[in-house]
Amino acid sequence: MQNNPQQSIGMQHQMQIYLQGLQQKKTSIPIRYEDLEAKAKEILKPEAFDYIAGGAGAERTMASNINDFDHWKILPQMLKNVESRDLSVKILGKKFPTPLFFAPVGVLSIAHPEAEAAVARAAKSLQIPQILSTVSSKSLEEIGEIHGENPHWFQLYWGRDHEFTKSLVQRAEKAGYSALVITLDTRLLAWRERDIQNAYLPFLLGEGLTNYFNDPVFRKAVPEPEKNTFQAIMHFAQLFSNPTLTWNDLKKVRRYCKIPILLKGILHYEDAQKAIDAGVDGIIVSNHGGRQIDGSISAIDALADIMTEIDDDKIEVLFDSGIRRGADVFKAIALGAKAVLVGRPYAYGLAVNGEQGVKEVMQNLLADTDLTMGLAGCKNWKEVRQDNVLFDDRPL
Amino acid sequence: MQNNPQQSIGMQHQMQIYLQGLQQKKTSIPIRYEDLEAKAKEILKPEAFDYIAGGAGAERTMASNINDFDHWKILPQMLKNVESRDLSVKILGKKFPTPLFFAPVGVLSIAHPEAEAAVARAAKSLQIPQILSTVSSKSLEEIGEIHGENPHWFQLYWGRDHEFTKSLVQRAEKAGYSALVITLDTRLLAWRERDIQNAYLPFLLGEGLTNYFNDPVFRKAVPEPEKNTFQAIMHFAQLFSNPTLTWNDLKKVRRYCKIPILLKGILHYEDAQKAIDAGVDGIIVSNHGGRQIDGSISAIDALADIMTEIDDDKIEVLFDSGIRRGADVFKAIALGAKAVLVGRPYAYGLAVNGEQGVKEVMQNLLADTDLTMGLAGCKNWKEVRQDNVLFDDRPL
Amino acid sequence: MQNNPQQSIGMQHQMQIYLQGLQQKKTSIPIRYEDLEAKAKEILKPEAFDYIAGGAGAERTMASNINDFDHWKILPQMLKNVESRDLSVKILGKKFPTPLFFAPVGVLSIAHPEAEAAVARAAKSLQIPQILSTVSSKSLEEIGEIHGENPHWFQLYWGRDHEFTKSLVQRAEKAGYSALVITLDTRLLAWRERDIQNAYLPFLLGEGLTNYFNDPVFRKAVPEPEKNTFQAIMHFAQLFSNPTLTWNDLKKVRRYCKIPILLKGILHYEDAQKAIDAGVDGIIVSNHGGRQIDGSISAIDALADIMTEIDDDKIEVLFDSGIRRGADVFKAIALGAKAVLVGRPYAYGLAVNGEQGVKEVMQNLLADTDLTMGLAGCKNWKEVRQDNVLFDDRPL
Amino acid sequence: MQNNPQQSIGMQHQMQIYLQGLQQKKTSIPIRYEDLEAKAKEILKPEAFDYIAGGAGAERTMASNINDFDHWKILPQMLKNVESRDLSVKILGKKFPTPLFFAPVGVLSIAHPEAEAAVARAAKSLQIPQILSTVSSKSLEEIGEIHGENPHWFQLYWGRDHEFTKSLVQRAEKAGYSALVITLDTRLLAWRERDIQNAYLPFLLGEGLTNYFNDPVFRKAVPEPEKNTFQAIMHFAQLFSNPTLTWNDLKKVRRYCKIPILLKGILHYEDAQKAIDAGVDGIIVSNHGGRQIDGSISAIDALADIMTEIDDDKIEVLFDSGIRRGADVFKAIALGAKAVLVGRPYAYGLAVNGEQGVKEVMQNLLADTDLTMGLAGCKNWKEVRQDNVLFDDRPL
Repeated sequence: MQNNPQQSIGMQHQMQIYLQGLQQKKTSIPIRYEDLEAKAKEILKPEAFDYIAGGAGAERTMASNINDFDHWKILPQMLKNVESRDLSVKILGKKFPTPLFFAPVGVLSIAHPEAEAAVARAAKSLQIPQILSTVSSKSLEEIGEIHGENPHWFQLYWGRDHEFTKSLVQRAEKAGYSALVITLDTRLLAWRERDIQNAYLPFLLGEGLTNYFNDPVFRKAVPEPEKNTFQAIMHFAQLFSNPTLTWNDLKKVRRYCKIPILLKGILHYEDAQKAIDAGVDGIIVSNHGGRQIDGSISAIDALADIMTEIDDDKIEVLFDSGIRRGADVFKAIALGAKAVLVGRPYAYGLAVNGEQGVKEVMQNLLADTDLTMGLAGCKNWKEVRQDNVLFDDRPL
Repeated sequence: MQNNPQQSIGMQHQMQIYLQGLQQKKTSIPIRYEDLEAKAKEILKPEAFDYIAGGAGAERTMASNINDFDHWKILPQMLKNVESRDLSVKILGKKFPTPLFFAPVGVLSIAHPEAEAAVARAAKSLQIPQILSTVSSKSLEEIGEIHGENPHWFQLYWGRDHEFTKSLVQRAEKAGYSALVITLDTRLLAWRERDIQNAYLPFLLGEGLTNYFNDPVFRKAVPEPEKNTFQAIMHFAQLFSNPTLTWNDLKKVRRYCKIPILLKGILHYEDAQKAIDAGVDGIIVSNHGGRQIDGSISAIDALADIMTEIDDDKIEVLFDSGIRRGADVFKAIALGAKAVLVGRPYAYGLAVNGEQGVKEVMQNLLADTDLTMGLAGCKNWKEVRQDNVLFDDRPL
Repeated sequence: MQNNPQQSIGMQHQMQIYLQGLQQKKTSIPIRYEDLEAKAKEILKPEAFDYIAGGAGAERTMASNINDFDHWKILPQMLKNVESRDLSVKILGKKFPTPLFFAPVGVLSIAHPEAEAAVARAAKSLQIPQILSTVSSKSLEEIGEIHGENPHWFQLYWGRDHEFTKSLVQRAEKAGYSALVITLDTRLLAWRERDIQNAYLPFLLGEGLTNYFNDPVFRKAVPEPEKNTFQAIMHFAQLFSNPTLTWNDLKKVRRYCKIPILLKGILHYEDAQKAIDAGVDGIIVSNHGGRQIDGSISAIDALADIMTEIDDDKIEVLFDSGIRRGADVFKAIALGAKAVLVGRPYAYGLAVNGEQGVKEVMQNLLADTDLTMGLAGCKNWKEVRQDNVLFDDRPL
Repeated sequence: MQNNPQQSIGMQHQMQIYLQGLQQKKTSIPIRYEDLEAKAKEILKPEAFDYIAGGAGAERTMASNINDFDHWKILPQMLKNVESRDLSVKILGKKFPTPLFFAPVGVLSIAHPEAEAAVARAAKSLQIPQILSTVSSKSLEEIGEIHGENPHWFQLYWGRDHEFTKSLVQRAEKAGYSALVITLDTRLLAWRERDIQNAYLPFLLGEGLTNYFNDPVFRKAVPEPEKNTFQAIMHFAQLFSNPTLTWNDLKKVRRYCKIPILLKGILHYEDAQKAIDAGVDGIIVSNHGGRQIDGSISAIDALADIMTEIDDDKIEVLFDSGIRRGADVFKAIALGAKAVLVGRPYAYGLAVNGEQGVKEVMQNLLADTDLTMGLAGCKNWKEVRQDNVLFDDRPL
């Protein structure tokens, strides 16, 4: 048990909290997600909190991302030897010690001055991969350097200028990012009522544009963007997204991109099949945390439908949107996902206590996941998927 | 993209709000519908607010008008070229740039002194048709003149005096109204508990009777209604509705009415078929915003049932009751409606900021609709209906 | 229309309220049921309010009595001539102008000093039958005299002493009660948590025992019960209910009872069939307003099941438990009930404003019912049952 | 009726409360469960209350343990002779006067200084068996002595040291415990967010370790644990649970254990079958009150599924998790359980008023159960199971 600390992270982590409690030491962030969000709300500027917490439209899809996990119930199995648990997953031929990924979250400078760098340090210490957002506050090179050998992926906002896109991808490869996550669901700026009410879009204040301003292709178009800020921001706005792109355009990226490509934002089972046909390496089932299309299907329901329709030997399927607790991780993986992305929870951890807050959020979630797996009677994810531990609550 | 401003209304409109935000300029009305309603409640006299906001009985149908949209979920499709989006619809052979209509809402003088005139000006500036209520505060002639070439329809409360009805219809035709919307679901005054509690019915105070008082047929019965107010109001009350009318009586109106006729208030699929058989030009599926029969089916569920039962090549189907956001517009059209009517939202916009408030409400809704369509992967309504982008949430 | 005031009660009643509103006159009781209950709570002693408002156990069945009406939705039909509406029903060969009955509610003295007498006067003025409770505060003879020709029924708590039961029935017959309603679901005192918390049972304070204390059989057992109060109350407690009674025992009552017999408290479809087999005249589907068995089926769901199982030509079916508004009356009758009993609403009306309060509650409900019927496109209950105006919301 | 006080406990108990009410005497604890919990919250230290009241994760399973009882509805039957009711059950060949058991609840010293001893005295006075927790605050010998002839079972936390386990079992047998309940669902410490937030685990403060500290095997490992507290606690922590145990290991216990064995924590229908195959005497369907795996199936849904799958002649099935009221007891037994365990309710009764509080909680629940059975038309549990008194609310 002591040999592989990963295997008993759940027991070790909570025992440490209890033992520290004997010395009156509390955890640095609230344990309950709802309390953590409330704490972040206290700390952040209102418009920054709303930017992170809010969703599209009436936020009904954002709510169903959480609630629809109740469509499935865990059926634990007793008296199985679950002492040596293995939370690791294998994705694209590489082994990861846990099924958690840091989801790409942009402009983290609005949450904390250390922004993505604090996340990177926490990620590295936990051996959890970070997927860095194109619109990060820190440069992709700086973040890549922090990670070193720790796996890190790069999320691409695939915009109007192919040269600039290519430049970004090649910079990412050079900085050691080992996969490219192309976000598909942001080709238009969504109708986010909180932000519109606040008339707050951090990019227009120049936040989150580091990877643009320091890019050679970008600087050709706008020299010295640091000085010509307004012009640079307007150029970014024009570049940012590209609603003309189609499945065919993927080939261009595929041609020069040497690392695996995953598509983030798949909800329709037909798109999952199209991704297989297009030869990409993976998909991330996601509705962008309910931030893009209100009224759309919840991510967990979409995952269930997609896994029913496709042959998942042919593509890696990851899950994003709504992961808050161990039961959510368990259910997403039981339904067929290989790993899950975590977003708002770590952003709140960052807001409340920087690197340490990020680390604790992930440790807590990992402990909860580990214990849920063990208590359900499984010692690895293969058992979770093979055993009959999930129950569809909907009437048959 | 710049050529047709309609195609990118979603991006342009919100970008304008964000850019104004940089100069500390906020929108003149709250963005969220719930906040807008709360703001209107602050501004209006309590009984006027209740008259607009309230519904029949326990207001359960009013609530289900909103909630039942969740029976359907959008399944967005990625990587389709959606840059040039077209929100236009074709109804009765005529093209309209957007699928939105101003629903007939009576006595808008209780919301704002400029009443329907402010709405007409906002409608004209947005090229959105207004359906003027029989019980408007401003005369149908005044409103018709504001619109000029902008399409405007006339809503008819089909009452007891056929001569008066004929007079109204002919005045509407003369004033350029290009369709007649006959409301069927108000042949009795509904049991609206808020109004009854307040003992408030604006018509009894002489509000909303302009089209009666200035009508030659009405003035034959009650000369100088402006002076003989009580007598005139009582005559109105007698005329207003007519519970004896049947499908056969439609023929009389059809005989002299030269413009297309639509029937508003259809909920039963058998009535939709009867409307086809009666040879009318369109139906508007509606439960009058939950204001007439509590306990009745929600409008969106009724629409879904009707579209399953009828051959919609034979009649134009519009939708009313519950539209608050772009997702609602999208779902109603995906289920088969050609266009949708918007009611309470613009009445609140009017209450909060007159013409400008009305305009912003519709711009916001239009932007949200445009973005929802684009983000769902569709560039026109035909694609919305043909592609498999809607999912019935109810267990199969 | 003026000939039969019943036919337009909905329009007349609300128009009167609106016209009175012009003179600043408000109704004497709140219009909304929820407001009426809140007002009664302000006025009554806490334990009296709890006795009336409360239910058994966790009050889940009490809540589902209201909520389960949403299982059915009204599908209104347009353009039917509904001017001359007829709310009358025919029960046991007798015509009643409305489908409403005053449900038996005991010890109304805790709500108002005039108790059942105020109810009787209101009932008479509206031509609505009252079902007087065995445990009324006023004697059955006094109430019978108030009614005179107005139909009134007697509710029987069928207890341990057959002679006393027979005496009660014969007194009721003599006092002009035209049917006997035997309550079956109170053979044990239910676990009503509010009353137990308050340690409040009005009968133990001598309330509601008039029909016992003035009965010759009872006085044989306890002479001068007015003086020997404790002894009399204890004798009542022993008599009150009888959990040994079975279907066979009904024959005894049937033998001497000359008026029709209805069984109140049927929930199981097998019991409905047994009632037919036992030759009783009617059943009242009811769960005693959620006051007897928490966790039991809601009354409206029970009604739907029973109507599916039995041949309702063979027995009169009435409905009780949960009627608050016109839509509820409409749905119960559409599902097959001949008439409905109203309980708590009039008890609150009595508490708030005595006879006038009772009258207004029933007028409001009647107006709401009348308008719901008319707006649904029906002019009598036969049409409601034959036409396809109800929709089962549950997935098929 | 007077002969067997058990048979009319419902009527007797509540009548006593009402009669005491006449003398202004109130019950010593709140009647409603929700009020009782609120009262306990007032009295207890926050972290002690949270320890008792809380559950795992987001406490969704804890909530569904209560709410899912609504999946079934009672269909009462009228006019059956239910005077002489019999609440007794037969389990493992032994008759128990009621179907209630005191669930094993650990460290009751945090609720009240008399802890499990107060419970034992209340249990004895009501002839209800107590299942004593391994981590009781009072020694199993002390509790066994209080019970004497009253049936008492011992709950086993089956840990890492087989000698210690054997010692515990043999001490329990010697102290008169007549069955062994092996808890299966606690082989890892669950992720209980309230406790982790409070950094409060009573065992680490030395609470609830009496049966460890006074055990000869334990004392061999840690001599004088009262003095070497920290060392003793750490040894306990190591011993406490054992995630390596499998169905095979049951045989070892079976070999030396002379009393019947029941397995507590079964949720999966396949595990129920495995228990039969393993030859144990009974199972207790339970999710540990929602304290172990959030996201798992509710206990009552699990019971229903298990009873459908297994042959219950071959094993005794008891139920635990969510019992709050008589309707819950009724439904669990109607679905097939032989008896039910009650946990938090009595812990709150203990907190609020010691032994007397415990007694009243159980008397109230028993009275409610008795009345529910009688009012449903059943006079014993056999009738409950055979008659058609339960209705599955879920669409078929």
